[in-house]
Amino acid sequence: MACWTSWRRACAPTKSAPTSAEPGASALGEFELIRHYFAAASCARAGEGVVLGIGDDCALLELAAGEQLAVSTDTLVEGVHFPAAAEPFSLGQRALGVSLSDLAAMGAAPIGFTLALTLPRAEPAWLEAFARGLDQMARQCSARLIGGDTTRGPLSLTLTVCGRVPAGQALTRAGAQAGDLLCVGGCLGEGAGALELVLGRRQAKAQVAEALLPRYWAPQPQLALGQALRGKATAALDISDGLLADCGHIATASGVALLVEQARLPLSAALLDLLGEEGARRCALGGGDDYLLAFTLPAEHLHGLQAAGWPLQVIGRVEAGAGVRLLDAQGRALAPPARGYQHFGAAGV
Amino acid sequence: MACWTSWRRACAPTKSAPTSAEPGASALGEFELIRHYFAAASCARAGEGVVLGIGDDCALLELAAGEQLAVSTDTLVEGVHFPAAAEPFSLGQRALGVSLSDLAAMGAAPIGFTLALTLPRAEPAWLEAFARGLDQMARQCSARLIGGDTTRGPLSLTLTVCGRVPAGQALTRAGAQAGDLLCVGGCLGEGAGALELVLGRRQAKAQVAEALLPRYWAPQPQLALGQALRGKATAALDISDGLLADCGHIATASGVALLVEQARLPLSAALLDLLGEEGARRCALGGGDDYLLAFTLPAEHLHGLQAAGWPLQVIGRVEAGAGVRLLDAQGRALAPPARGYQHFGAAGV
Repeated sequence: MACWTSWRRACAPTKSAPTSAEPGASALGEFELIRHYFAAASCARAGEGVVLGIGDDCALLELAAGEQLAVSTDTLVEGVHFPAAAEPFSLGQRALGVSLSDLAAMGAAPIGFTLALTLPRAEPAWLEAFARGLDQMARQCSARLIGGDTTRGPLSLTLTVCGRVPAGQALTRAGAQAGDLLCVGGCLGEGAGALELVLGRRQAKAQVAEALLPRYWAPQPQLALGQALRGKATAALDISDGLLADCGHIATASGVALLVEQARLPLSAALLDLLGEEGARRCALGGGDDYLLAFTLPAEHLHGLQAAGWPLQVIGRVEAGAGVRLLDAQGRALAPPARGYQHFGAAGV
Repeated sequence: MACWTSWRRACAPTKSAPTSAEPGASALGEFELIRHYFAAASCARAGEGVVLGIGDDCALLELAAGEQLAVSTDTLVEGVHFPAAAEPFSLGQRALGVSLSDLAAMGAAPIGFTLALTLPRAEPAWLEAFARGLDQMARQCSARLIGGDTTRGPLSLTLTVCGRVPAGQALTRAGAQAGDLLCVGGCLGEGAGALELVLGRRQAKAQVAEALLPRYWAPQPQLALGQALRGKATAALDISDGLLADCGHIATASGVALLVEQARLPLSAALLDLLGEEGARRCALGGGDDYLLAFTLPAEHLHGLQAAGWPLQVIGRVEAGAGVRLLDAQGRALAPPARGYQHFGAAGV
């Protein structure tokens, strides 16, 4: 049994783990409190496809004729994927943004998501803010909370997202062809740059911090871009492990070589201000957490997409061969920076 | 990014949490080890509906015309939902069986499932046995592992199951009608009885233990029964919180009263042997973890289902009104036993 009725099990006080809910919580009951807080995120959304939402053993989704369902699961653990004592509103935004980015990478449109929330205790203020952050991202992305489970334990979140995509049009990692352009959906490295601020390793002027911090705390899944790339991009994924590592996934799945031209990496003024050119480039190549799309594109589609205003940047090309090579402006091979993805706990630029 | 490429992130040694893999693990790499262990569970299964399995940003599923997708998420935390140091083969079976029971309760047929696994460390022997248990249940139920995420942390499992059901035929909790019979799919209380043995609170003869322990460690989701009840049962769920509590969910969702006749509760010889009549009845009424279906059925369907060999037992009926009432053999109201569902950590008969 799952889907919300289960909230009660986890959040009813037990002998072994008494609850320290704030005054007022006990009157309403924690089950009802949680239900209340997450009600907004479970409301109907544009696009829909949800026949039955929260409250039964399963949610029920429907697809239009000729559609397929895209499904992905991500877990975020406190102290590993986000800092201990993270601000809950931001955490709600980030958790859902990161998860929906997988749908963007497939060219899918969100339908709904489930939330498995493990909490040390049910604190009304924390839950209220977390649910608001979750709901804000859910609204932005037309996704609906369709079920969940809550358990007591060290803070972690597992979200499973469901989306729709026309049959045969999903973007996978496996279709890149020699001759394609290698593109990304915006300025790179900002997620990793923001993490420096989140961890307090660097200070930034207010303007720079304001530009970078949302990249970490409210990553915007490139859902519209992913859908615009259907039938055009030959391979795609979202950059979460770092550009070079993620390009490696495309190269392996497609059986091709990807060439990344260092001089073409799009770097934002904010990131350059924070880290300088060398540091910004390292973040762009190896930093995780960008949640932008990287994709391969036959050249014939480039101008049409650019003319339509999509924020894509060409950063290299696909060749026959294997692996990923980093090139300087003269086309000579460069040694990649050492750092790939590391856990939050071990992260460092 | 999710779906298996992520295994690497979690299980690569990090500075902050060094891995204590057994000899041999390091040669192959933990990523490859985990991939290897879970390969069997990710193989194609009868029934299918999986267009793209593990290895991309999302899995892709397809439904036949006129089908809907049923989705449910469950989390199991060590020390809360299963004992610390649980035997991993059994844990794999239990985790998937419990999750698939939600599909059974909707009358859905499994397609696939994702596994979010949080582990303190990657131990080859543990992973191998856990994956074998998971795969055994997956084979029995024609479900396929379609994606996952692994993170480092205290042991917990979140499974999201996806199944198919003809549009409009899903069994919900909301359709029970006055005059329907109240039925269950087999002998009650055995999950709670088995937990007494799991926790070492009681000793049993070998024959009794052999009969009961699989009810806890390898609960068999009643998928075929759920599908046979489509178009017949008016409401259904799986019993996980305890019979009376779960009947309360149907009563609330359907806006009716459910009457449970204590004399009609099906109790197995093994449970009676372990706990005596009084104890067995308490487990049947209030014990969690049965993962049998409870459902309401118009009387006209009873004999056809029984003649077809379905293991259903009539235990009461539906009336106009609200709530759940427990009746003695003379139809007089009885006080229900105090215990509803409690966490593993607080469980007791």
